[in-house]
Amino acid sequence: MSPYIVILSTGSELTAGRSLDTNSGWIANQLFELGWKVKKFITLPDDPKLILSELQSLQTLAKERPVLAIMTGGLGPTEDDYTLETVLTLTGKTSYSVEKAKLRLTKIYEARGKEYKDILPNVFRQTFVPEGCKTLDNSVGIAVGFIESLGDHSYLVCMPGVPSEMTEMFKRRLVPELKKFYPRENLVQKTKWLWNIGESLFQNDFIEPNRIEFFSEAEWGVTANRGYIKCIFQSTNEPLLSTIIQRLEETYPKIISDDVFQFVHERLLKDKLTISVAESCTGGLLGKKLTEQPGSSSYFIGGFLTYSNEMKSSLLGIPMEWITTHGAVSEQVAKAMVEGLCQKTETDFGISITGIAGPEGGSPQKPVGTVCIGLREPNGNVSVHRYIFPGNRESIRENASNTALFLVYQSFKH
Amino acid sequence: MSPYIVILSTGSELTAGRSLDTNSGWIANQLFELGWKVKKFITLPDDPKLILSELQSLQTLAKERPVLAIMTGGLGPTEDDYTLETVLTLTGKTSYSVEKAKLRLTKIYEARGKEYKDILPNVFRQTFVPEGCKTLDNSVGIAVGFIESLGDHSYLVCMPGVPSEMTEMFKRRLVPELKKFYPRENLVQKTKWLWNIGESLFQNDFIEPNRIEFFSEAEWGVTANRGYIKCIFQSTNEPLLSTIIQRLEETYPKIISDDVFQFVHERLLKDKLTISVAESCTGGLLGKKLTEQPGSSSYFIGGFLTYSNEMKSSLLGIPMEWITTHGAVSEQVAKAMVEGLCQKTETDFGISITGIAGPEGGSPQKPVGTVCIGLREPNGNVSVHRYIFPGNRESIRENASNTALFLVYQSFKH
Repeated sequence: MSPYIVILSTGSELTAGRSLDTNSGWIANQLFELGWKVKKFITLPDDPKLILSELQSLQTLAKERPVLAIMTGGLGPTEDDYTLETVLTLTGKTSYSVEKAKLRLTKIYEARGKEYKDILPNVFRQTFVPEGCKTLDNSVGIAVGFIESLGDHSYLVCMPGVPSEMTEMFKRRLVPELKKFYPRENLVQKTKWLWNIGESLFQNDFIEPNRIEFFSEAEWGVTANRGYIKCIFQSTNEPLLSTIIQRLEETYPKIISDDVFQFVHERLLKDKLTISVAESCTGGLLGKKLTEQPGSSSYFIGGFLTYSNEMKSSLLGIPMEWITTHGAVSEQVAKAMVEGLCQKTETDFGISITGIAGPEGGSPQKPVGTVCIGLREPNGNVSVHRYIFPGNRESIRENASNTALFLVYQSFKH
Repeated sequence: MSPYIVILSTGSELTAGRSLDTNSGWIANQLFELGWKVKKFITLPDDPKLILSELQSLQTLAKERPVLAIMTGGLGPTEDDYTLETVLTLTGKTSYSVEKAKLRLTKIYEARGKEYKDILPNVFRQTFVPEGCKTLDNSVGIAVGFIESLGDHSYLVCMPGVPSEMTEMFKRRLVPELKKFYPRENLVQKTKWLWNIGESLFQNDFIEPNRIEFFSEAEWGVTANRGYIKCIFQSTNEPLLSTIIQRLEETYPKIISDDVFQFVHERLLKDKLTISVAESCTGGLLGKKLTEQPGSSSYFIGGFLTYSNEMKSSLLGIPMEWITTHGAVSEQVAKAMVEGLCQKTETDFGISITGIAGPEGGSPQKPVGTVCIGLREPNGNVSVHRYIFPGNRESIRENASNTALFLVYQSFKH
């Protein structure tokens, strides 16, 4: 029995377009991995009337079918936080302060050298929940979450809108409850990445021919990213899932990968290898990506941002006439960049990127999006790869740095 | 007369959490600048039943008050694009192919060496709109947008979900129509940035004391970012708006700025100045930010990613014992980094960043978030600035590189 799932987020900063709601998508993604599909997202301003009217509609709907409403936001200490008040109006209940949360708040105040009596009423209000509901502990912040009944097999979940508090509460406290409310078979999920291929081509070449054989018993989904698509497969039938992945690997042997960012990070650490970069059109984006994970200082040494031709020449020792002859965006210069880089840094891996990110600077021979990537592997091999990436300046730069990491991934695999 | 505004986005990739809906927030932000507030965002999967039922609710609501529903998505060429079909069901109308769009599509095909008859029916479908509605030309892609009546002073706007197509259509085609539908006085908007100050402190120190004097006739809004908050003021009374900005400048003389990214870009171009960077904990993020705008090659020369101490020493000429004595994250090393940098690059501006992005590596003297930024100005002045930035690794790195740009801004101002 699957509930009709609605995700409700509140916040005037959201409906004014000043903040982006990342909570709803995150929750939907988590629910998808648990095997549930969301029917609707709703975002409302901090307006108790609008929120109440929406909750009343959900209550009415719950008379016809099981409804699961997951709401974030409005549990904070400021005057525009209306969630608890609205839920009390909806249910006609009173509220009480959760002892555990009260103690936690007191301890936080004591640690700051303040006393219980110093706690502002608004701050204290965050420890309150409606009587008789299931509470959801907040291990990151103060506001307590709760689950209120909306009718038969129907629930309203209220959680704070602060992402770090919400995600922790969702994973640790809410998921076990949801599994009790709506029991279902264990769903297995596998994810693979495919590089430089469009979503529609993938659907045409892989999903359609295998629809009957695979996808009556398995679900699939695709997320498009810069440079790659992420293919997600789900089923309760694990052997079937393995067959799908095997077929996928046979169909796309050259462009398939696992999570490249995670894989490269782990292998560089494990194999105690080092890496450095020489970036032109990406201006530092590849270095930024290589240093996103804690611990990256074990393998990432640093590198050169050689945006101007003069820097390519003076820092990496490429003769200016070489650049003039072949052009700054050329296989020859990419190769010279990575060779000059590794002479200076002596790292195991070296990557160079030079390209035309646009919107200006393209030509018929080298249109905007042309990018040359040089790779130096631990065995001393140097290779150069030329691409034409689609999209605007941002998209081309993202594509180039993601693809550079894919080249490192491939070097580990082959 | 203000309409009840709802923004509706469709796409199963959104409700599955595989893609983030950036369209709704963008539209809400544009509407806010025009002086309209949005009452609700709704996101639905590509399910014609759910979409129709939502549109019917809006049609019912339009009997009570003016409703403006702006819908994105579902106008593409694939089988899960249901917007046109649903609107036809809702209104009982038929559709026709827009001549101009048909011609445009034919030309695109001809440019690819294909003929009119090669156009797939699904692709061709994108040129169709309901009879008798106002069409919205698409100057970026193929799918035509349209405005359908929902009742008295009530409208349903349908636009493609591809952001580049939607934003262009919104600004060029839709806004003039909206201004005709709902005429209103000219609203003026001013935006200022405040650095290293929280939203609640700003509200407490600036909004509350000036509430009576300013904010009965003006609206305000705040967006929190990494390192700064963006304060937006709106009013039809332009002199009042100037008074507010003046008071803001008097209250926060040291931390106020305009759009730093735009300002620094324009001034570096105009004054023909150059800049280079030496980054440690940001790993390339500052270079990436400095090369986001087309034309940045006029001022950004490049720089060094000196993530390891060995690189700080070998590339920037900082003695290792200097690093060992003071620590890699210290005012002394930040100063030596920027001096070493500018000796090599000879640029007018130089920036160095060294810090502890965490989660490991903090100490009581230098907690996670400690960042030292060195600045070399065109007159040869070198200064070092020490901060403790809040948040996680990503937040600290964003804060550090944004603040570095603020230092360049301040150098131009003083």
